[in-house]
Parts: sequence; C-alpha cells; structure tokens
Amino acid sequence: MTVAKKISTSMEKSSFIRKMFEEGARLKAEHGAENVFDFSLGNPNMNPPAEFKKALMEAAEESGEGTHSYMPNIGYPFVRQAVAEFLSTEQGVEVTENEVIMTCGAAGALNVVFKTILDPGDEVISPTPYFVEYNFYVENHNGVMKTVPVNSDFSLDLNAMAAAITEKTKIVLINSPNNPTGQIYSKESLDALGRLLEEKSKEFNKTIYLVSDEPYRKIIYDGNIVPSIFSSYKETIIVTSYSKDISVPGERIGFLALHPSAEHKQILFGGFALSNRILGYVNAPALMQRVIAKIQGVQVDMTQYEKNRKLFCEGLTDAGYEFTIPPGAFYLFPKAPIEDDVAFVAELQKELILVVPGSGFGGPGHFRIAYCCDEQSIIKSLPGFKKVMAKYK
Amino acid sequence: MTVAKKISTSMEKSSFIRKMFEEGARLKAEHGAENVFDFSLGNPNMNPPAEFKKALMEAAEESGEGTHSYMPNIGYPFVRQAVAEFLSTEQGVEVTENEVIMTCGAAGALNVVFKTILDPGDEVISPTPYFVEYNFYVENHNGVMKTVPVNSDFSLDLNAMAAAITEKTKIVLINSPNNPTGQIYSKESLDALGRLLEEKSKEFNKTIYLVSDEPYRKIIYDGNIVPSIFSSYKETIIVTSYSKDISVPGERIGFLALHPSAEHKQILFGGFALSNRILGYVNAPALMQRVIAKIQGVQVDMTQYEKNRKLFCEGLTDAGYEFTIPPGAFYLFPKAPIEDDVAFVAELQKELILVVPGSGFGGPGHFRIAYCCDEQSIIKSLPGFKKVMAKYK
Repeated sequence: MTVAKKISTSMEKSSFIRKMFEEGARLKAEHGAENVFDFSLGNPNMNPPAEFKKALMEAAEESGEGTHSYMPNIGYPFVRQAVAEFLSTEQGVEVTENEVIMTCGAAGALNVVFKTILDPGDEVISPTPYFVEYNFYVENHNGVMKTVPVNSDFSLDLNAMAAAITEKTKIVLINSPNNPTGQIYSKESLDALGRLLEEKSKEFNKTIYLVSDEPYRKIIYDGNIVPSIFSSYKETIIVTSYSKDISVPGERIGFLALHPSAEHKQILFGGFALSNRILGYVNAPALMQRVIAKIQGVQVDMTQYEKNRKLFCEGLTDAGYEFTIPPGAFYLFPKAPIEDDVAFVAELQKELILVVPGSGFGGPGHFRIAYCCDEQSIIKSLPGFKKVMAKYK
Repeated sequence: MTVAKKISTSMEKSSFIRKMFEEGARLKAEHGAENVFDFSLGNPNMNPPAEFKKALMEAAEESGEGTHSYMPNIGYPFVRQAVAEFLSTEQGVEVTENEVIMTCGAAGALNVVFKTILDPGDEVISPTPYFVEYNFYVENHNGVMKTVPVNSDFSLDLNAMAAAITEKTKIVLINSPNNPTGQIYSKESLDALGRLLEEKSKEFNKTIYLVSDEPYRKIIYDGNIVPSIFSSYKETIIVTSYSKDISVPGERIGFLALHPSAEHKQILFGGFALSNRILGYVNAPALMQRVIAKIQGVQVDMTQYEKNRKLFCEGLTDAGYEFTIPPGAFYLFPKAPIEDDVAFVAELQKELILVVPGSGFGGPGHFRIAYCCDEQSIIKSLPGFKKVMAKYK
C-alpha cells in the first residue's frame, strides 16, 4: 500500500460526494457554468466589507521591520487582546488574551482542541445532522465520533444526549447556527446541556468539555440571537473563524477561546499552544491577525443573504417542499419527498440544480441548499425545483 | 487526566528547553533585552525584500470579488503553475502544477506528507543532528522516528543509513542545508542515497520515499549550490516554505512538490490533497499565495548573513572553538569544549549569551548559534564566548 490505509479508505468513502461534484463539473462544461444552479458549496459569495479592504491596505502599508516574523505561537498579544475584548461583550463573560489563541480558521482550532484533549478511543459526541469534516478531525487524533439525533425542528434533544454520554465521552461538540440546518440552539436548551454535562462529569468523575463551533454566529436573521455559550457551562471552548463574518474563508484566520473559569485552564491552554505548534500550523497567518485586530465586530452586509433566504423560502413553499425556516447561517435543509436523498439530488441535477444530499451530513431524507449565491440563479432555479417535486406529488 | 497523555508527556519533555527560554527571558528582564545576546531562535531578522512589499501592496489593491474565497484545497492553479515553472528550472526536471500543492509552510507540508503515507508503526529515518520538531510531526500520525548518525563534518553517512533501513521504513527525511549544522549534502551523496533507496525498495518490495525539507535552499554562501534532489531519486517529495527566502515565517506559506515520475503519483497527490484538507489547514492562506506567485525567485539580500557568518567564524576560531564552516542556512554548530552541552550553554548564559544545546537537536556535545541577528550583538558577544572557552582550555 502506497498511502496509509486510513487515507485510502477515506478517499474511497468520499467517492460518492466526489462523483456528485464531478457530475456537477460535467454539467457546467456541457451547459455553461452560468446555466447550472450551483447551491452545493458554503463558499460565501459576498465581498468582504469595505472595512476589511481598508484594514488590509493599512496592514500592507505597515509591512516592514518584523511584521512577518514569528510571533508567539498563540498569536500576537495585541491581536488576542482585541479579540478578547470583543468576545467579552459578545459572551457577557470577561475574557482576556490569556484565554485566546489565534488559529488557522475553525478547522485548525478544532484539530488543536482534539489533539490536546483526546486520548485514543475517547469519544466526541455531536448532534446530527452535522458538518461531516468533524469525523476526520476527530479521527486525526485517534478519537471516536459518536452522533445523537435532534428534534424534528433540529433543536437539541437532551434526552438523546443524556443517553449517549458514557464514561468514554470526553467532548460534546455543537455547532450553532448549524451547518447544514441553520438552526440556533436556544438559551434554555444550552443551559440544560450545561447542567447535563456538569452532572455527567460528576457521575464519571472527569471533565466533559463542551466545544462550541461558531463560525456562523453573526449570520442570523429576523432579530434572532445566538446565546452566550460561556454563560451556560464553564468547561467550554469556543472555536470559530472570520471566514463567514467577513467572507474570507481562503485566508484561514480564526481563534479558540477557553472559558476563563475552566478548572484546568493553565494546562489546557499550554496544551493548546503546544498542539497549535506541533500540528504544523505554528501560528495563524501574521498579516491576517493584524487585519482582523483592526476590524473586530465588522461583518458582511446581510441584505443579500436575507433576500436569498426569502426567495428560496417562498419559492420552495410554493413548490411544495417542507422545511424549517432557518434562523441563521446560509443553508436550507428541506425534506426530500422520497427517502433516498441521493436519488432525489440526482433528479435535481437533471434540472441543472446542484445541492448536497442530507446523507452527506448524517441527515438522510433531506438535502442542503447553500444560498450564499447570486439572486438570479435562485430565481432561475425555482421552476426546476417545482418540476422535480411535481413528479412525487 | 485533562489533556491527552501524549500532550502531557510532550509538555514535560520539552521542559528543559522551556526552562532555558525562561532563563533567557529572566536575563532580558534583569539586564535589558539590548544587553542580552540572543542567538537562540531561527527567526530571520532581515526585512522581506522590497519586491515582497510591492507584491503585497498590489495583492491588497486587487482585493475584491472572490480574492479571499475558498479556492481548490491544493491552491490556486495559477500560483501552482508559477511555482512549478520556477521549480522546473531549479530542479532541472520538468514539474507542472499537477505535482505542486500549496501548504501552510514546510511544517504544514510535512504533516500532510506524513498523514498521507504513514500507517501506524511505519518508520521515518532522519540523519542527526536534526530539527527536533520532526519527532512531533511523525508522532502526530502514529509513525515512529528513527535517527542515524552522520559523518563528523555532518555529511551523510550512507553506511549508517543502509544499516538503519528496515522493512518498516517508509520515509527517509533529509534537510539540506541543514538545521542546525548548515551542511549541504553533495550531489554524489544524494545520488548514492537515491541508489540505496532504490535497492532497499526492491529488497523490501515497497516504495521508500525520500522527503527533502528545503527551507534553507536559497540561504547559501561562497558559491555553494544545493543539488537538485529530483535528479537523484524519483520517489521524492520536496517540502519547503518561503519563510527564510523572503523572511516571512509568520505568514505560513510554502508548498510540497511530488516528483513528476513518482510511480504512484496520482494516488499520492489525491492523498496529499485530502490530508491538507482534513488536517484543518484546508488551504494555504489565499493572499500570500497571490503574493508569492508574483515574486518567484526573489530572495532576501544575503550580505548581512554573510557578514554575520564571517564575524562569528573569525571570532569563534580566535576564541578556540572548533566547528565546520557551514555552507548554508544561518546556523553554526560548534563543539562544546565539554561533553555536557547543557552545562556549557548555562556557562554562556552567565555571559548573557543565549544559544541552544546540541542535545535539543539530537547532537549532544555541540551547541547551535543562530546568526540571523544584528551585527552588533555578535561583536559584543565575542568576548563572552572567549571568556567561557578560556575556562576549559
């Protein structure tokens, strides 16, 4: 075997998604990219806000003596301080730079956390549907991914969670607003989750950590709010990125923040710093650290996402699709009218519509629409959605 | 246990290096940073070349529609093409963008390669002394690090290498110009290494890969050249970064390149792409990819490094130190006059000189001086070096 068995298996397993993308590419080549309605990727189409470009130009102007050198692996102190200040307001809990580590995006932060906390065989529990890359991040560090169902509106099912937690559970991983459902977990459910984790930690005489993956925190609608997770449970680690806030997913800039009252704060923080270094990230990209320090709290204009969401919600309702109106993120996760979501997605492809089967998120019987796209492609795609649904009505 | 056992052990093991750095920090606090001669870190002090700032300003100006979005995980095709073109000339072997993946520095690239190739228990062999972070990178992916000695001038000892290779060997990892010795491996020794790996691959009926870590390739003196590694062995992967070439180690930009004639090229390349994604790097930072594409071949002015090297070589010779004049990189690796290099380094600290014990690189009885520093601190430190040596003469 030339490549590692795990990698070889992963390459085979992901083949159904790859085939789907290949089919999408084929359709674009055949019909012209502008005639294919691609809602398959969560690649934000908004431009970064004007403040970002201004900050970037400034940072480029300031380039010189030491601005691209190594800094402490955990990030520039002044950047971590700026992040901590903003986070303190957002979370309603006083956070300092000594609880913040700058990372190569949320994906980098998750790998750092898992590497630091998981011994081989330790379990990470995540509600489904979920961002399936989590499987890889957990397996990278010899952990075991375990999923639990949610309620039909994609809210947390605490009974299911309670039943799933065992003595092997080291981490509960949540993602709110959620990819792929767009659901936001309520303060009540998070408080209840916090109490549950406290009880279970006592029961098993260990600390069960809550990892809150929050890259969509600022992408919300209708005056919804994303509750402070630090207020619900003190053994919490927030991981996030600026990818969606300011539309810069290619720049790999994010951070992790440890609850200031976490019991083993010192050793955890030291472990995170070490893992960030030895996993080969070394540090989050220097220039982008400088940029985001200048624009804390800035985010993309939500007008277009709001319009897109409305267009899809009205159009799909009209076509007879069933779905929960998502309070956050830029995804819709409607029910497929047949059980086999992969087959249904193939039907949509015939109308030149590209979406991802729910099975790809541990949510079979559904499909995911990413509406971080241009308005016209939504409008033009709606007849296709309607036509395919009509086959099953 | 709150953190993983491996992490806990690593934190303890690295405590002697940490203590040394803490002692350095204490000395700086006590005597003023400007009065402490810090040669402990390979953090290039040169400013990036003027072309870098120009390219950065341009890239910042071009910021807009999609320039910070996700691109293919392996990097922008036009960037990989620019890199491949330069690499083709450098290596004397025609490389295309289909053999190049942009990475978060050389550390990111090494983790991608190890993740992709190593099954648990597979061995990676590296000549000593070596960059000890390699241990972590190999262990991250459940591999086993094995070291082999070199000749007294730090050139490759091929007999030792031949004796070390077993059926468990999956990768031989070399670093030329070397950190910490500054040695460059000759074309003859690399050709011989290539032949050895071909034989051993046949003997064990598998492919043994050569991974060549080359971040110091452009930091060379006295008209020395770093031979093309692709010319010596076809089952080779080059990993490198722009950190030292253009003094931007904080930006995490580098690449890996697979030999165009590697037997299992397709599956390896697919594996590297997958690993780059699932390790959480996702892609190399977008903006820096755009920047380096504009300045292929540009490098820092070597004048200061040359001056520093000369100052140290003359000063240390005068003081009675023994060392091989390093043809590359910005390190000197002199012999300590006593066996216990840690004790010797502690003596130098009394003269406010900070260097790293050779034990920290698997090269006991030596110490490493990083001369990527300002000239004055070298001149001012030389009496201290002389005074300490005099105690042992």
